[in-house]
Amino acid sequence: MEEKKKISMAVIRRLPRYYRYLSDLIDNEITRISSKELAKKMGITASQIRQDLNCFGGFGQQGYGYNVHSLFTEIGRILGTENNFKIVIIGAGRLGRALAHYPNFIKRGYEIIGIFDISPAIIGSIINGIEVMHLDDLKFFVKANKTDIAVLTVPSTSIREVVNTVCEAGVKGIWNFSPRELNLSSETVVENVHLSDSLMVLGYNLLQNDKAL
Amino acid sequence: MEEKKKISMAVIRRLPRYYRYLSDLIDNEITRISSKELAKKMGITASQIRQDLNCFGGFGQQGYGYNVHSLFTEIGRILGTENNFKIVIIGAGRLGRALAHYPNFIKRGYEIIGIFDISPAIIGSIINGIEVMHLDDLKFFVKANKTDIAVLTVPSTSIREVVNTVCEAGVKGIWNFSPRELNLSSETVVENVHLSDSLMVLGYNLLQNDKAL
Repeated sequence: MEEKKKISMAVIRRLPRYYRYLSDLIDNEITRISSKELAKKMGITASQIRQDLNCFGGFGQQGYGYNVHSLFTEIGRILGTENNFKIVIIGAGRLGRALAHYPNFIKRGYEIIGIFDISPAIIGSIINGIEVMHLDDLKFFVKANKTDIAVLTVPSTSIREVVNTVCEAGVKGIWNFSPRELNLSSETVVENVHLSDSLMVLGYNLLQNDKAL
Repeated sequence: MEEKKKISMAVIRRLPRYYRYLSDLIDNEITRISSKELAKKMGITASQIRQDLNCFGGFGQQGYGYNVHSLFTEIGRILGTENNFKIVIIGAGRLGRALAHYPNFIKRGYEIIGIFDISPAIIGSIINGIEVMHLDDLKFFVKANKTDIAVLTVPSTSIREVVNTVCEAGVKGIWNFSPRELNLSSETVVENVHLSDSLMVLGYNLLQNDKAL
């Protein structure tokens, strides 16, 4: 491990954006693109693109540019789209239910295999073809089914307990939608989604625009 | 306009995170904190904090640190929490409905004043106390009610048309949850939320962890 040069998270965080743009190009039946053209579409510089993709060995060919389909497949592979990651959703409230129908899970190669809650009113109900189970059954479920990721849509008040349960059960990654930021010291990978951060940046930019007008 | 030094968006994007941590400190009745202590909690350096906050005039006092409540209020003010931004949600599907109940709108000083859709099956239904209206009525609604932000939870296929309608109606900002990235050249401020980007970064980190184990 750590044989290869560590790639910065800033570069990694840009990869899904390339992936989205390449997906659009494929939808528009574009098979080949220069870094210059792609840069123009994405509002970044061609040298940024070349620099980013060089971290993974390049992919482009001098005088040809990028083969859209190969680049799309390669970036997908780097990001794990071919790994068929298995997901459970913890918290079958409104957001949990919306995520259970999230089309990009399937498009990005992920599969929802279980939904968990603690409310007797919700347990046993069917969401997108999946029966909601009690959180107490998570540990057994994870043992019986390869489970890579737990999506957490639980209130702040119960987040600590749920995280403990999820980690004990052996889930390897957490996609956290609860307001509290998780910084786990354990081997569990965490990705926090803070929608309100994005909302507040929008608020800031609105204020700036108002001042400028 | 543009009298003050332009603050980089990287700094702005970090402000909501300070805001969340300060909110936690308030919940825990902590009234004062040094940049060193705050840095430790947030997993960044004290000099980063001082540098970030100096862009707005500092706030800290030598030998005292930060007054938690003042700093929280100030950062909130910079981000627009005192501006009572008015929101409409366009698209009353699962995600739209979940967002209509999103508690952080109120906590961050935002107010949902309208929900719009085009489906006859949904129009007229009540979501969180608000009656869903037809998108055709948006223009009239925006004229009659100050409307700052449109939250878009519509499919990619209809996003262009909806964006045109929203911009024509005079909405000033867009919080875009649709998969297509919006880069509007007009005066409308856009903040794109790409959940799948975050999911794919999680996938990448899972792969790296697997390799390391």
